[in-house]
Amino acid sequence: METLSTTRAHGGTQGVYRHASVETGTEMTFSVFVPNHAPDAKLPVLWYLSGLTCTHANVTEKGEYRMACAAHRVILVAPDTSPRGAEVPDDEGWDFGKGAGFYLDATREPWARNYRMRSYIEKELPALIAARFPADMGRQGITGHSMGGHGALTIALRNPGRFRSVSAFAPIVSPLNCPWGDKALGGYLGSDRAAWREYDACALIADGARLPDLLVDQGGADGFLDEQLKTHLLREACAAAGQPATIRMQPGYDHSYYFISSFMAEHVGWHAARLKG
Amino acid sequence: METLSTTRAHGGTQGVYRHASVETGTEMTFSVFVPNHAPDAKLPVLWYLSGLTCTHANVTEKGEYRMACAAHRVILVAPDTSPRGAEVPDDEGWDFGKGAGFYLDATREPWARNYRMRSYIEKELPALIAARFPADMGRQGITGHSMGGHGALTIALRNPGRFRSVSAFAPIVSPLNCPWGDKALGGYLGSDRAAWREYDACALIADGARLPDLLVDQGGADGFLDEQLKTHLLREACAAAGQPATIRMQPGYDHSYYFISSFMAEHVGWHAARLKG
Repeated sequence: METLSTTRAHGGTQGVYRHASVETGTEMTFSVFVPNHAPDAKLPVLWYLSGLTCTHANVTEKGEYRMACAAHRVILVAPDTSPRGAEVPDDEGWDFGKGAGFYLDATREPWARNYRMRSYIEKELPALIAARFPADMGRQGITGHSMGGHGALTIALRNPGRFRSVSAFAPIVSPLNCPWGDKALGGYLGSDRAAWREYDACALIADGARLPDLLVDQGGADGFLDEQLKTHLLREACAAAGQPATIRMQPGYDHSYYFISSFMAEHVGWHAARLKG
Repeated sequence: METLSTTRAHGGTQGVYRHASVETGTEMTFSVFVPNHAPDAKLPVLWYLSGLTCTHANVTEKGEYRMACAAHRVILVAPDTSPRGAEVPDDEGWDFGKGAGFYLDATREPWARNYRMRSYIEKELPALIAARFPADMGRQGITGHSMGGHGALTIALRNPGRFRSVSAFAPIVSPLNCPWGDKALGGYLGSDRAAWREYDACALIADGARLPDLLVDQGGADGFLDEQLKTHLLREACAAAGQPATIRMQPGYDHSYYFISSFMAEHVGWHAARLKG
């Protein structure tokens, strides 16, 4: 693991790191904020998965998480959203290929070799975080935005007991039922929609998977709400399954980091309350 | 005045606006955050002047001021740092010309027509803010970063009674005594260094100007500290003049927005305490 930068911020250290990923077959860059802490302390870890087109940098620069993470002494990890590099297959669209890994393991060519963000986030990166940072991996939470909200929900649903806290900002709740999902899951996984269910939060809940609890904020003025995000499907899936969930419409908010940063401190606090020693 | 965007954030409105400036002879873009407020309320105004190479966008995206401004109900105005546009004279350096207006009125050619950021910030933009936003212009504070810290200090020193609160992040405290100042003030004003004194915070204090109070934070690991910023000159000028000032070295912090955002909430709170009704 190579350190690209470390910067003092809010009493802690905001770092950016790069390593050679076995899963993606590429160099992968991610950021980690480590709050000020006692020398031998291990801190809980909050994963933040980003949305379409983003890298680690968007939330690192605009997410406004450091003050709350410092106050609650929570590490925040922000991975990239896909493999990168000249040798990695790409698509002309901004919603497929680079920047659009959808937190799945692709099975179709030419994507299958590199587009393994599920295994990268579920297995490879946590092992690196555990080995190289003062992280208590027994206390993990996960959140994300849009495509990353989809990632947070589905990864938590498929790994029961791993995350004590799960939240999302404007998540894609059902790739089976939106154009982004049709394009991405069709492209990476093929036309057998049964194979998509493990990458669909609503389907996973309907099929019996459960979260410890759930907090979702969704902007009421988000231009992607009606066609892509369809928050009501998650509300219905949770209600039908008896899955506890706090799903809030926030009037007037859009899909941007102005929305995310407005509720970030509250989400970090919500996670921190569930990640206490 | 044209509205380029308005976005809901932290319960208020983050806007970006453009207008034709008489002073600079160009279109000028600036951002304003207006917290949620009662329909007939007038809110205090905090000016944030940005540093070299910046536009309104840097602090708007990375400054982390909205939560504190919303909590204290303070409007924040972030202007650009120079005139812009193809017709505006420029320099090859990043520390002179566009992005480097130094908050002065240039007297040398070819700069004199457009580079009038002093009059723009002191006169033209305040009139626009007063006319178009719910601003109580009897309650103004001013802050800024680096070149913008220089701007905040010198504008406040030259306009006694206008600002109830003044602070700065890593300000250039004495253009008379650093390479950035030599280049900029020499280029915009010419070689008569007596004409520079009204654009030098330390000289203004030595010449008798006073601030109501002063808060300065300076990163101890700021790479510009020794050669350009020279915080100790401000400390000495304040001590010699009996100017009350809280000037803090913050160990480990650099010159970036990671530094600024770490202390932004504290600065906003400091201003808000002095801007109360």
